Amino acid sequence: MVGGGQDAFIGAVHRMAARLDGHYELVAGALSSTPERARASGLALGLTPERSYPGWETMLQGERALPAEKRLQVVSIVTPNHLHFPVALACIQAGLHVICDKPMVVNTDQAQILVEAVERAGTLFAVTYNYSGYPLVRQARQMVRTGVLGEVRKVAVEYHQGWLATAQAEAGNKQAQWRVDPALSGPAGALGDIGTHAEQLASYVAGLELESVSAELSTFVAGRALDDDASVLLRFQGGARGHLSVSQIEIGRENDLRLSVFGTLGSLSWRQEDPNVLVYDRLDAPRQLLTRGGPGLSPEATAATRLPAGHPEAFIEAFANIYAGLAAHHRDREAGLEHTPDYPTVHDGLRGVQFVEAVLRSARSTERWTTVLAGQESA
Amino acid sequence: MVGGGQDAFIGAVHRMAARLDGHYELVAGALSSTPERARASGLALGLTPERSYPGWETMLQGERALPAEKRLQVVSIVTPNHLHFPVALACIQAGLHVICDKPMVVNTDQAQILVEAVERAGTLFAVTYNYSGYPLVRQARQMVRTGVLGEVRKVAVEYHQGWLATAQAEAGNKQAQWRVDPALSGPAGALGDIGTHAEQLASYVAGLELESVSAELSTFVAGRALDDDASVLLRFQGGARGHLSVSQIEIGRENDLRLSVFGTLGSLSWRQEDPNVLVYDRLDAPRQLLTRGGPGLSPEATAATRLPAGHPEAFIEAFANIYAGLAAHHRDREAGLEHTPDYPTVHDGLRGVQFVEAVLRSARSTERWTTVLAGQESA
Amino acid sequence: MVGGGQDAFIGAVHRMAARLDGHYELVAGALSSTPERARASGLALGLTPERSYPGWETMLQGERALPAEKRLQVVSIVTPNHLHFPVALACIQAGLHVICDKPMVVNTDQAQILVEAVERAGTLFAVTYNYSGYPLVRQARQMVRTGVLGEVRKVAVEYHQGWLATAQAEAGNKQAQWRVDPALSGPAGALGDIGTHAEQLASYVAGLELESVSAELSTFVAGRALDDDASVLLRFQGGARGHLSVSQIEIGRENDLRLSVFGTLGSLSWRQEDPNVLVYDRLDAPRQLLTRGGPGLSPEATAATRLPAGHPEAFIEAFANIYAGLAAHHRDREAGLEHTPDYPTVHDGLRGVQFVEAVLRSARSTERWTTVLAGQESA
Amino acid sequence: MVGGGQDAFIGAVHRMAARLDGHYELVAGALSSTPERARASGLALGLTPERSYPGWETMLQGERALPAEKRLQVVSIVTPNHLHFPVALACIQAGLHVICDKPMVVNTDQAQILVEAVERAGTLFAVTYNYSGYPLVRQARQMVRTGVLGEVRKVAVEYHQGWLATAQAEAGNKQAQWRVDPALSGPAGALGDIGTHAEQLASYVAGLELESVSAELSTFVAGRALDDDASVLLRFQGGARGHLSVSQIEIGRENDLRLSVFGTLGSLSWRQEDPNVLVYDRLDAPRQLLTRGGPGLSPEATAATRLPAGHPEAFIEAFANIYAGLAAHHRDREAGLEHTPDYPTVHDGLRGVQFVEAVLRSARSTERWTTVLAGQESA
Repeated sequence: MVGGGQDAFIGAVHRMAARLDGHYELVAGALSSTPERARASGLALGLTPERSYPGWETMLQGERALPAEKRLQVVSIVTPNHLHFPVALACIQAGLHVICDKPMVVNTDQAQILVEAVERAGTLFAVTYNYSGYPLVRQARQMVRTGVLGEVRKVAVEYHQGWLATAQAEAGNKQAQWRVDPALSGPAGALGDIGTHAEQLASYVAGLELESVSAELSTFVAGRALDDDASVLLRFQGGARGHLSVSQIEIGRENDLRLSVFGTLGSLSWRQEDPNVLVYDRLDAPRQLLTRGGPGLSPEATAATRLPAGHPEAFIEAFANIYAGLAAHHRDREAGLEHTPDYPTVHDGLRGVQFVEAVLRSARSTERWTTVLAGQESA
Repeated sequence: MVGGGQDAFIGAVHRMAARLDGHYELVAGALSSTPERARASGLALGLTPERSYPGWETMLQGERALPAEKRLQVVSIVTPNHLHFPVALACIQAGLHVICDKPMVVNTDQAQILVEAVERAGTLFAVTYNYSGYPLVRQARQMVRTGVLGEVRKVAVEYHQGWLATAQAEAGNKQAQWRVDPALSGPAGALGDIGTHAEQLASYVAGLELESVSAELSTFVAGRALDDDASVLLRFQGGARGHLSVSQIEIGRENDLRLSVFGTLGSLSWRQEDPNVLVYDRLDAPRQLLTRGGPGLSPEATAATRLPAGHPEAFIEAFANIYAGLAAHHRDREAGLEHTPDYPTVHDGLRGVQFVEAVLRSARSTERWTTVLAGQESA
Repeated sequence: MVGGGQDAFIGAVHRMAARLDGHYELVAGALSSTPERARASGLALGLTPERSYPGWETMLQGERALPAEKRLQVVSIVTPNHLHFPVALACIQAGLHVICDKPMVVNTDQAQILVEAVERAGTLFAVTYNYSGYPLVRQARQMVRTGVLGEVRKVAVEYHQGWLATAQAEAGNKQAQWRVDPALSGPAGALGDIGTHAEQLASYVAGLELESVSAELSTFVAGRALDDDASVLLRFQGGARGHLSVSQIEIGRENDLRLSVFGTLGSLSWRQEDPNVLVYDRLDAPRQLLTRGGPGLSPEATAATRLPAGHPEAFIEAFANIYAGLAAHHRDREAGLEHTPDYPTVHDGLRGVQFVEAVLRSARSTERWTTVLAGQESA
Repeated sequence: MVGGGQDAFIGAVHRMAARLDGHYELVAGALSSTPERARASGLALGLTPERSYPGWETMLQGERALPAEKRLQVVSIVTPNHLHFPVALACIQAGLHVICDKPMVVNTDQAQILVEAVERAGTLFAVTYNYSGYPLVRQARQMVRTGVLGEVRKVAVEYHQGWLATAQAEAGNKQAQWRVDPALSGPAGALGDIGTHAEQLASYVAGLELESVSAELSTFVAGRALDDDASVLLRFQGGARGHLSVSQIEIGRENDLRLSVFGTLGSLSWRQEDPNVLVYDRLDAPRQLLTRGGPGLSPEATAATRLPAGHPEAFIEAFANIYAGLAAHHRDREAGLEHTPDYPTVHDGLRGVQFVEAVLRSARSTERWTTVLAGQESA
């Protein structure tokens, strides 16, 4: 693991997700950008002194020196965004599998380089778009894929938070500090932090490719360098439309990610804060509530489920499904079996960065519509 | 009453709203555009044959001929949109008070004429933006006004319906037929039918004036002449921002109007389908649920409340509050008292039409932003 | 109307319910037990001075003196409980139809006398068990009747309120004062006030007859003369079982009446505070939410519905369905048509009083089970 | 671990709970009552062949033979109920700490023997009443303890399931088979399986001791040997009252455990299926929703919390809090520190068994009230 030492939030989540199913063991880490803190954090987590590395470069060197069967196999990258690229690239080039937090990197050039590096190295690469690990998100994706909703007309995705409604960074909140600093977080604020989750969730479930966006980025807290609120109109290839709203200044909203997909035959709605229910509506029929572990679910949802209905699973379990997905991929490859990843890969990471850049371009443009892929404006 | 005969939906609602509190008596009507049906509908509702008029012009003539104390005092206009203007204008010019369904008229010129006519005649004029009659909507408005939320940063308003997800008009649905016909409904579909409700609700509660819009109008059902879905980014005067989403093709959504207002100190959320609860969030404090009739409510909310907490009030009661508002205004005027209307007036009707036109202009524009008032584009 | 003057709550509700559909007109009343207040209340409601009677006996005399076509036809009795019996009996004997609040009377002897009087007079008699007027309660009743749930095994009914958690009567709350006074309210407190609603709702929907009860009555507020909380185990004829819990001391609960019915094939759940949804579960199938006005409803539910789905109806509309039921019965009788009442009648009123008496006996007994009808104890 | 091999449900839950926080390592097991299946299950879970024991007696022998520092320290007992007692007793006598599923044993005599054995051996003993591991359950307990609710008047606890609404055991459901067999499950069905959870949750939060019960046990599915539904009226020492309802035949209910506690100053409500919200009502104040990780929580709730608000935690995390509690106790003891367990101990296990026996006695009695502790009847 790189990053995730003391004061970090997401590192601990990655470790719980890795431990939950017993597929991973933490053997080495460079857990902070400060060498002493990195060492102390490693020891506190039970790493040996030799493998509590002071930095990620030393870690890669040290591990390379070990016999193959003792060596690190997978690296989790849980640093602030600006470090994802160099660490990931070095790991790939060292032949290591990577599990990288999102947004994968801070610009498209970096993302393209990683895509090519992964293709060259043949290593596995997961991006922890963890919300796609929820069983009922997988159920929704299957229902769209199998045509249960008919043709998708509209996708609405929202991600509401309120914890940055005041100047948290200035108040000493470590989680806020790097997120609102362009040097550490990249060119996008709320858009990169949670907008990428929203975009990925919508794409993952609806199976659509974005064509163009029309965006409004706002910064409501005085003095903040990055956006803390974004509203984006979406046009998908093939004619479907949608909108995406994300905010970190909506007081009282905790982590309220919501997705609705509307088709010609039915619709689906899901909320991350109530993740064990999927609302399913059909033309001229009563609403159905599909529950995780309950009747009528697809094999894909069931495979992501650990407990019977009514015994709620939640955030960590969904996160663990990303880890379990990469582990299963690795196991199948070792066994010489075909495997189609159900976890977000480096390609999803690339698409997320393309989305961020398109929104940034749109927000600066006087044109209503900005195409996602080309960089050229269109109306 | 003009309109609202057999097969009509909203006419019956107006009559129940009028009856509920005993302030109104139905004495005359021209209840359909077909003379025979108008008469039959009037008789079925207990009108005398003489006052079951075959058309609205005859009604105005007939009533003018009656002695003043027996004459119609208020006319409810519940026809398809295209008739609102001529009927309303004639009523105002006849010195009658008017309660008119929304959208008030189909273009700004008509709206301006009504505003001037009302000012000249000194009559009362209510537009049945009925959702602003809900007690907790009035509570929300008061909380914004008194500064409880701090400065308003963002307003999100959504209105989700699904009943037009298929070609209902072609299937014989009378409610659908006039709504998707530009000749009867005006230039806007879902935008005019429910978008105007959404805009008015947001303005009524947040107390902000729209500056510019960036809109996407869609028509998802093949062959439909008007929009059935609209997404609009909003910029308000003073810097607040927002978005408005309305749709009539979201299968499974019944009448799901929602409003959230986010300020620097707190936020409020309300849903029409669960109208007796107002969600109130404050910085760093547990969420509160304010309930109609419950503790902590303003006099304005209490004045709009008939029953104790837990004895739910709903759509008809809110609608009746618009009727009761005009009746109270009338009573106070007769008594020579000052009265500030709490019901939507001809000015709100005008603003709704301006909003519709701005959205229509934006949807045709290549510019990102369209100003609401001027008609000139801005970026 | 008898009772329901100033300071009364339920009288105003009866009047709104009567007005809503235009079937009734308020023509006479004895609206308070204090003659001056009775007169003043009548005048305030628009009654003529002659028909603003100082007391119910005078009202019956005065009306008898009027020509038949001008005379009162139906009397609504909305006094405290102890007056229901004499007023109702006199009205029946005067050939008037009666709409009486619940509990119908304060003991079984009185109830039996009313039953016989109604049978003798041939008049109509409704008890405002208003919750049985909700469209989805009628839907639930039909689903049980038509066997959709299979054989009913279990019925759970709860009615939670909190407004009497403190000594409200002593604090000057008029609604509380008569309810906690045995001389005005009868021998039961919460049990009579809301327990009878709960019993009736369960019986109405489940179509079962109570066989025996095992009850715990509590009085939590010091100095209160009547129960403010009741828990009752239920055994129905035919083997179904259930429990009923009602309370007026549960702080924060407003008017939270809930019913669940469990059968061999499915189950139903309904909540008065969210009355437009009926939760329907079937063996091995996803949960369905049936909505008022939505797909899949019975003619009986539709007949009790005024608005489309998503336009919520609530307490007053349900109450008005009781009034509309008696009006429809009267209309059909005048037309010589058969009519099976869908509203609660004098027989339901009797059953409610029998239930109260059985619970009171059980609470004093050392035996576990008390039979409802005989008064003899059984184990 | 003893029990929890193939086809088992709860064993896998225990293992995930043990792994989540990294406090435990699975080193040995006797995972099935069938020796071959025990071995196979152990190997499948990564145990060495030597420590994949064919039975629990062999496991205890084998481990005793190991050097102390390699030896098993804690045994998780996850067998059907009838084996809890012999395995637990042998483990305690071998000086091992025990984590035992509920109900702890099948009668009071066994429970008393375990209590004494634990006291003699000085070992740690947790009963996995896992619902008491939820952070907001701990919050509720603290709010009661610190007097926020005033004096507790009433406790209502319900546990609704529907999975045994049909003859599941006969249909081959392994989870059902042992639960409805008195030889494996003990004398209580739903009462033992989920009623004990309900009783413990109520006691844990309300801090009250049961005095007497009045119970109705039902068996709705033909041919079933044990109860599948129980309704119990409760009297607590000190005058508080309550009721407990548990069922496994309520079609559509998944794992719907609910608790409400009503005091003189406020009340609390919590639902296991929505575990990240605690509803808090105060006299004459708006309802508050306390959220896990949100503002206003106690140190005890925070200590049981891993993720920020809005990132839901659920069943496994709560379960892991029981495991973490015993681990923390062990750590503190090793460090010579005082430690008050926050997890359910052998004493809670005993109280659960006493509750079951009292309910069984009550259900056979003709008296209304059965005292919990004495076995003698009282009225």
